[in-house]
Amino acid sequence: MTTTATATKQFMTSEQVLNEWQGHRNLTRRVIESFPEKELFEFSVGGMRPFAKLAVELISIGGPALKGIVEGNVEAYSEEAFNPKTKEEILKKWDEETEVINHYFNQISEERFQETFNLFGQYEFPVYQNILYFIDNEVHHRGQGYVYLRALGIEPPFFWERF
Amino acid sequence: MTTTATATKQFMTSEQVLNEWQGHRNLTRRVIESFPEKELFEFSVGGMRPFAKLAVELISIGGPALKGIVEGNVEAYSEEAFNPKTKEEILKKWDEETEVINHYFNQISEERFQETFNLFGQYEFPVYQNILYFIDNEVHHRGQGYVYLRALGIEPPFFWERF
Repeated sequence: MTTTATATKQFMTSEQVLNEWQGHRNLTRRVIESFPEKELFEFSVGGMRPFAKLAVELISIGGPALKGIVEGNVEAYSEEAFNPKTKEEILKKWDEETEVINHYFNQISEERFQETFNLFGQYEFPVYQNILYFIDNEVHHRGQGYVYLRALGIEPPFFWERF
Repeated sequence: MTTTATATKQFMTSEQVLNEWQGHRNLTRRVIESFPEKELFEFSVGGMRPFAKLAVELISIGGPALKGIVEGNVEAYSEEAFNPKTKEEILKKWDEETEVINHYFNQISEERFQETFNLFGQYEFPVYQNILYFIDNEVHHRGQGYVYLRALGIEPPFFWERF
């Protein structure tokens, strides 16, 4: 067995990460679409938040967090700026944020990914870890949306279909 | 606005990916522990698989998939090798797989991450995408486990606590 040193091996490029993330966002968009209007805002399991609230959380993180990283702004996290009343409003905002995410993500340098940033004035981690957290948090909540859909008797979209 | 080219920017090292994954695996282990013995094997929502079955899936992917990648083996995916009857058996196997994952992951070269491999003779993607899929799939199913726990009236572990 040959074990090579791992410390300097690169795993993937920033373009590949952005592509993965936007693929996840496409799938999450399909999950939002899969909910009937009423259940999107009202249905949940075990006293958790309905999927509309989870979608608002995801919308309030991705774009605003990247903007904060690029502009060095440590303004606190807030969901107050967006109070959608319809599925259409959520989907429209979702698509707008796709462009916001591309815009800011592409301005982050290779060095910056390894630098620590106090995201939202609260989460002090290397930038790459903050970005992985955004993606993981989305996959986590979307998995919960899959359970809501199954509990409603609705077949969720295939997990592996991203584009 | 300055937009720099993204194609050649590196996002993170392989050591950082392995560390993130093992952090996720620690959290998933805590979720397994949080279930009462009976509910781990029997409880679910919306006709889905109980969390013991989801844990067996995760155990059947990580280590065996990395072994396949390193050894160039395209044997089909199977959950047949592991049929646990207790939580303790699952946790013991989980910990064994921690070492298996470290062992094989560290043998994958930087170039190999970008090469295509027909995982389990079925999933033909670049190796880095296959590995991201293992992690995403774990976060996805663990999110479902969080709903099961909430439906059982059990507080899940904090999502951000990994080590």
